[in-house]
Amino acid sequence: MITSLQNARVKQVVRLRQRRHRESEGLFLIEGYREIQCAVDACIGVKALFTCEQFYGHSDTRTLVRRLVENADISIEPVSREVFAKISVRENSDGLLAVAPSPAWPINDMQVPPNGLFLISTATEKPGNLGTILRSADAAGVDGVVVCGSGTDVLNPNVVRASLGTVFSVPVAQADADSVRSWIKRHTLWTIAATPDADRLYTEVDMVRPCAVLMGSEHAGLDGEWLNSADERVRLPSVGQADSINVAMAATVMLFEARRQRGIESTD
Amino acid sequence: MITSLQNARVKQVVRLRQRRHRESEGLFLIEGYREIQCAVDACIGVKALFTCEQFYGHSDTRTLVRRLVENADISIEPVSREVFAKISVRENSDGLLAVAPSPAWPINDMQVPPNGLFLISTATEKPGNLGTILRSADAAGVDGVVVCGSGTDVLNPNVVRASLGTVFSVPVAQADADSVRSWIKRHTLWTIAATPDADRLYTEVDMVRPCAVLMGSEHAGLDGEWLNSADERVRLPSVGQADSINVAMAATVMLFEARRQRGIESTD
Repeated sequence: MITSLQNARVKQVVRLRQRRHRESEGLFLIEGYREIQCAVDACIGVKALFTCEQFYGHSDTRTLVRRLVENADISIEPVSREVFAKISVRENSDGLLAVAPSPAWPINDMQVPPNGLFLISTATEKPGNLGTILRSADAAGVDGVVVCGSGTDVLNPNVVRASLGTVFSVPVAQADADSVRSWIKRHTLWTIAATPDADRLYTEVDMVRPCAVLMGSEHAGLDGEWLNSADERVRLPSVGQADSINVAMAATVMLFEARRQRGIESTD
Repeated sequence: MITSLQNARVKQVVRLRQRRHRESEGLFLIEGYREIQCAVDACIGVKALFTCEQFYGHSDTRTLVRRLVENADISIEPVSREVFAKISVRENSDGLLAVAPSPAWPINDMQVPPNGLFLISTATEKPGNLGTILRSADAAGVDGVVVCGSGTDVLNPNVVRASLGTVFSVPVAQADADSVRSWIKRHTLWTIAATPDADRLYTEVDMVRPCAVLMGSEHAGLDGEWLNSADERVRLPSVGQADSINVAMAATVMLFEARRQRGIESTD
């Protein structure tokens, strides 16, 4: 059992909270029973599992750990309560923290079905909002979420957490803006920019055609290049206080409107 | 300046985090520039304002404090950094914490316009979710939010915070379930229960008529009495993982669907 806060593996885990270390080491963190279960279901090959039995929260935790132990390539690292408190970002992570190789999720691998519906997060800053966007994308049955920009990346531990593991069930791609624009063009996706300055309401555009909803950052919205290149600019109704709805709630509303227009339980 | 953590007024503020103390003292807490501004705009009569200049975050903070000072009935209490850290629930509350008399918000004072649209939160447990529901209700232009049950009350400091002050702009009522049911009956509101077990989709019901959307708790949903007494039971589409959408997002989606059906920028 690892009991020292100075242990090299403990230090490595703490480093992986930072994007630059995730990128240089090609590894990321997954905390919590549900999230690790979703990752395993999505064939993410967990390399190491740090466990702290005192925090086991979910009744099936031991079954999941056993299932992982049966995989010869994984190292199981029991740690003390103090060490677990240090390596976990969340308060309640069920006594489980996994380290896994970062999936590359290249944009060119993203499947585009004939009537594809996509959400493009160009600059979401808060991990909680990006996580919520992923949950809504999953619930609304989008064909993929594309994350671009140099801000919060989709493998940030708090995004993984806030997504409740849906980051592993929704198709995800990560790429720079130029690659995303080329991909949009190649697949002739209609782009719909969400911006408070638009004249048209989000309910007035056709979201049945192959399309991508573009969301900007919490504070500045979409940048000029995205706004100008979009095929449509739409806004939510503004009957309440300014800013009472945030980027994640706006994305949720737009994706469910697309699902409504498309015939709600078809995922074609 | 108050510098002692043992000061009686400091202890009173800390006590007001608990519902029973809010109820016995008839007072509640409002943290943050925006939230206090919204409360003042809504004619909530702030009685005391605790200030800590080192944390002033908003450029108009001094203007707001001056505006409050001009009110003869208010006591302004500058406090030390340590005291402010103790009394504030949030990390970033702009160095401002107000104590105000709890509005009663009785259900019988809730105005019901001819085509009223209401959201009834029967048992929301997490303050963050109730706050989000209030934000969405504000953005979607509902005529009121009714909070019932003995769980999280609408004056919980974290609800006030998560609502971004919309708790003061949306008409709110708080009442026990029986009073809410009598009020629904008196105003002949059509009740639409959100539950994953419904056959009908939320887009298939008429939300143009005077109606109330009923939301349950995060874990158990609506209780049997609410479910059985509802005029309609509806669900969101379930194309993604089970549970990928939570009570607050579901409420957001339903309220914006009602707004869409009603002609989106009319608030009649």
